Amino acid sequence: MRTLRLALEYDGTDYRGFGIQPAAPTIQGALEAALAPTLGHAVRVTAGGRTDSGVHAVGQVVSLQTSSRLDTDAVRRATNARLPRDILVRAAAEAPLEFDARRSALWRRYCYSIWRDAEPNIWWRRYCYHLAAPLDTRAMRRASRYLLGRHDFAAFATHQAQANPGSTIRTVYRADWHCAGALWHFEVVANGFLRHMVRSMVGTLLAVGRRELAPAEVGTILERGDRRLAGPTVPAAGLTLMQIAYSTSARA
Amino acid sequence: MRTLRLALEYDGTDYRGFGIQPAAPTIQGALEAALAPTLGHAVRVTAGGRTDSGVHAVGQVVSLQTSSRLDTDAVRRATNARLPRDILVRAAAEAPLEFDARRSALWRRYCYSIWRDAEPNIWWRRYCYHLAAPLDTRAMRRASRYLLGRHDFAAFATHQAQANPGSTIRTVYRADWHCAGALWHFEVVANGFLRHMVRSMVGTLLAVGRRELAPAEVGTILERGDRRLAGPTVPAAGLTLMQIAYSTSARA
Repeated sequence: MRTLRLALEYDGTDYRGFGIQPAAPTIQGALEAALAPTLGHAVRVTAGGRTDSGVHAVGQVVSLQTSSRLDTDAVRRATNARLPRDILVRAAAEAPLEFDARRSALWRRYCYSIWRDAEPNIWWRRYCYHLAAPLDTRAMRRASRYLLGRHDFAAFATHQAQANPGSTIRTVYRADWHCAGALWHFEVVANGFLRHMVRSMVGTLLAVGRRELAPAEVGTILERGDRRLAGPTVPAAGLTLMQIAYSTSARA
Repeated sequence: MRTLRLALEYDGTDYRGFGIQPAAPTIQGALEAALAPTLGHAVRVTAGGRTDSGVHAVGQVVSLQTSSRLDTDAVRRATNARLPRDILVRAAAEAPLEFDARRSALWRRYCYSIWRDAEPNIWWRRYCYHLAAPLDTRAMRRASRYLLGRHDFAAFATHQAQANPGSTIRTVYRADWHCAGALWHFEVVANGFLRHMVRSMVGTLLAVGRRELAPAEVGTILERGDRRLAGPTVPAAGLTLMQIAYSTSARA
């Protein structure tokens, strides 16, 4: 047996997220269907970062175990030839046998993109959230700083995650806004993310931008851990999993 | 009656071209359906440049006549509110009563985009033609120069256009290649274009790039006017109508 590590990118628009589901198109379903004839046996992949329905990835990483002796470049090319046009294996590499894309990850980086203009951008419509309303971006930047560090992020999680006390503690290493003209990006790095965490963080920061919340209230929302105080979850289309980091020892 | 001029952009992937067709999604069909309730009457638009099935536009211009007194900004906003997400009216303006987007145009600019890399680019897949094979780009640039000037472009037209002698004469003002990393653009400006003209020009220049034709043979193909000597027509996805120019007197 060998463990392989694949770097993956996909346009999540037409998928119901990564995780396999009966009778729904998923990234895992499409990938495993393309890998099986390539490797000559059924295969199960483990993803390093979560991408829900409609969420994209530029830097997803998956691990899998195989008995195939096919070299990694042949695995990559043969799998790509079988994948639909909106999923691509960028790289395939040998990994230590115990490598697990989810458990071995040190941190993940996500980017949430917003098109801020009176008119939508038709070219970016699959990858951005369109917002015409003015925003207090200074207040949004100030509010983002309250997210940094080790906190219980229960306020930014779905109710399922909240059921398990203490399981919602994560460390955020970076949370900042970048702009390129009308295109705004929120970049966030953490050791892990709860379901809907980035999208509910962005919804809350946008509430600050609309002056419905003061920047310091983001700190209060975190402390209280109450989902109802946070802003609404923004649409999936704007979210992209950018990068997953592993320690060098996890590389083959 | 007033004549209005609309600047339009669209992702042509999911449309059977501009011109209205029964039982097929077309840009004209979608636009006229959004304009009618806005203007309060059925309306027919005239497009300045041709965009076939799957071809995109960043700078399409249409003209229309209306009895509505709605101001141009209200026309733009109300029409956009009714259009699908892949079509956008960028601007609406008053035009001289006799303005006709097709007949008043001085020149059109098209861009054909190619993704030149071993692997496809999933983000550009709707807007690029993917080519992994190496190309002699110096030869392609040299060959492009033979297209400049006034010629009979019958060799680069569909057979229908060839039936009418002399009707295939056009003047090409610009024909050059630009590259941005793996993304290559062929930009071509002419007073008018025949059906499939840009895509068959690009197909021929790519045959030069693959060294199946010498650059000077592009001149010979033009002179002989024989479609069979030209290269194959490249896919529609890479083609975008960028700009249409009008004399200042045609502006309101």
